[in-house]
Amino acid sequence: MKRRRIAIVGVGMTRFGKHRDRSLMDLLVEASMEAIRDSRGAEPDSLFVSVMASELYENITGPANTLAGLLGFRDKVVMRVENTSGSGGAAIFAAWTAIASGVVDSALVVGGEKMTHKSTAENAAIIATLVSDYERSTGITLPSYAALMARYYMSKYGIDTEPLAHVAVKNHLHGSMNPKAHFQKRITLEDYYNSRVVAEPLRVMDYTPISDGAAAVMLMELDKALSYTDKPVLITGISGATDTHVVHERSDLLDIMAVRRSTEKALAMAGRNRTDVGLVELHDMATILEIVELESMGFYKPGEGWRAAVEGETRYDGSFPVNTSGGLKSKGHPIGATGVAQAYEIALQLRGLAGERQVREIPDAAMSMSMGGFGNNAYTIVYEPGW
Amino acid sequence: MKRRRIAIVGVGMTRFGKHRDRSLMDLLVEASMEAIRDSRGAEPDSLFVSVMASELYENITGPANTLAGLLGFRDKVVMRVENTSGSGGAAIFAAWTAIASGVVDSALVVGGEKMTHKSTAENAAIIATLVSDYERSTGITLPSYAALMARYYMSKYGIDTEPLAHVAVKNHLHGSMNPKAHFQKRITLEDYYNSRVVAEPLRVMDYTPISDGAAAVMLMELDKALSYTDKPVLITGISGATDTHVVHERSDLLDIMAVRRSTEKALAMAGRNRTDVGLVELHDMATILEIVELESMGFYKPGEGWRAAVEGETRYDGSFPVNTSGGLKSKGHPIGATGVAQAYEIALQLRGLAGERQVREIPDAAMSMSMGGFGNNAYTIVYEPGW
Repeated sequence: MKRRRIAIVGVGMTRFGKHRDRSLMDLLVEASMEAIRDSRGAEPDSLFVSVMASELYENITGPANTLAGLLGFRDKVVMRVENTSGSGGAAIFAAWTAIASGVVDSALVVGGEKMTHKSTAENAAIIATLVSDYERSTGITLPSYAALMARYYMSKYGIDTEPLAHVAVKNHLHGSMNPKAHFQKRITLEDYYNSRVVAEPLRVMDYTPISDGAAAVMLMELDKALSYTDKPVLITGISGATDTHVVHERSDLLDIMAVRRSTEKALAMAGRNRTDVGLVELHDMATILEIVELESMGFYKPGEGWRAAVEGETRYDGSFPVNTSGGLKSKGHPIGATGVAQAYEIALQLRGLAGERQVREIPDAAMSMSMGGFGNNAYTIVYEPGW
Repeated sequence: MKRRRIAIVGVGMTRFGKHRDRSLMDLLVEASMEAIRDSRGAEPDSLFVSVMASELYENITGPANTLAGLLGFRDKVVMRVENTSGSGGAAIFAAWTAIASGVVDSALVVGGEKMTHKSTAENAAIIATLVSDYERSTGITLPSYAALMARYYMSKYGIDTEPLAHVAVKNHLHGSMNPKAHFQKRITLEDYYNSRVVAEPLRVMDYTPISDGAAAVMLMELDKALSYTDKPVLITGISGATDTHVVHERSDLLDIMAVRRSTEKALAMAGRNRTDVGLVELHDMATILEIVELESMGFYKPGEGWRAAVEGETRYDGSFPVNTSGGLKSKGHPIGATGVAQAYEIALQLRGLAGERQVREIPDAAMSMSMGGFGNNAYTIVYEPGW
């Protein structure tokens, strides 16, 4: 069947970090208004809101309906979409398919989370609620899954933690050039090794921080988009896939089926090969995940992903830039915002507006991968310059 | 543009009521498996889960991912969709548009909520979280909004509570013939007047109970659907619309813009007139809402909706059956399930499988209206026999 062509026409994002005196709604409104301004004031037909757990963070249900009210939206198609830490990718999928179906012509996708007003222990308890009952009962958490994965990867391929350190150093370098990143400071390998061990072998510097923030993108059917931007960023492929929810049921911890299959399906839909993709934003909740996801996405063979950051390929000025925004590691991870902020970064990069961290060459295609939980659900998106 | 034709091929539903020893996931799995069996074992490409607040009820985030795991689903497009009490309609919309876009060919939509393990006061506190901050600070709740609406309607049109009593009696009559309804007993006008006043002028018998339950529908592109059912129920129109989130900002409390506009858009999409619609399931959280919604949907003129139940038109054996399932009033309202359960009832009725409460004549079209909060967000769907 012939599909509608759909593009990002504008983007917005708050700084990620600690917003002490602001609510989730404040942040969502700021990102929304920036995306609307960036779309020359376009008023969308619909609103898709990505929030993981406003119920637990701020005792708010129906965040999409609240936001629609604050934005003064009437007579719109409005919903909240949730896929834990991959909510943003799912919300873009829902918006994209709504436009592709012809029921609406445009959509504002806004994601955000307000987390830092809760203590680390409270955050850990909230985030633990997305782990399967059985595994949760053993006391396992997302950070400890990552540590198990790192240990297994290291022992299987005979490496130490140095490649992980390189991922952290690279993503902090990128974050240092991103004025919207939570951490805007470079770190050295020494800083990495001096940081406290959280879950052996992983250290503080391996993990994303707890952040507040929001991001937004305006999607539009391409014919209409050209009235609102000179540089529409096409979304030519988009798909989702799941793996087991219970992590120990997986036959191979280092091949995340949700990541692999969503990548394959999105590429097939876009009619693109991996060699066309010259920029990736992915879900580096922990440094080891950047490596394993690059392998599951098929950009590196199993056991070779660890070389990418070590050899500088995935730096913003390398041959295959990954997480130029700073990634979750340095930009931060306000959960509902993250998948939408990936689209924000890619739109800036494809438009050549990424400033100091601008990639050297605008690629034919870019890709974001938004992952829920410990890889039980992923959405992958292919973007291309549309001008 | 030419749209794909999409149909319901199978449906499932738990009994609504008090399920003391069962979890939300148990209920979602039961409804899912029934819908899969009713679809001759079809395995869908995608899963859309409608849950309002598992975070607050059971401390579960990511209910869609958990359910996908329990159902053994791998490599599926999976998301949770939320629009408070109208979550079910929004989830069907997301599934429908995903199929219409061509990204997937089939979708299981499952909605549910587990509520009765919480006390009435705890439930009231959870449900209050969907009211706008400002109005919540005045102490107003959904039941009191309904009471204000009833008072205004009664004073504007010079009626007493008798028409409300007739709505309750009718919906209990319907529930008494629905083996999956929470309340399966008839009530009399006398029972109604003997029930306790909750919020003057409304009584216990004006309101939906707190219930547990789940419902599911399998959607499929029509060409494929015919392999899984002889009686596909087409969804020919579907749309959403919003009104103000803050209720006192509305210019007319008795004209719910979200309900009116979503109905108009869904009918336009289906190419149908109101006269084609011979069966409606709507959101009678309180009896007055059945009356006001019928007016906002345009089936009755302002000030005339109260006559419908009084004159017997909206009984299952009347000229324009409404809420043959028993509605929220008698069937119950496990929040995330409700919009999906409306589709369940309409599929049974159009297929002629509704037993004792079967409508006298299969209509050309039927409609469900799934409303979030106090009408801030509604999704309306048009169904037609597809055989």
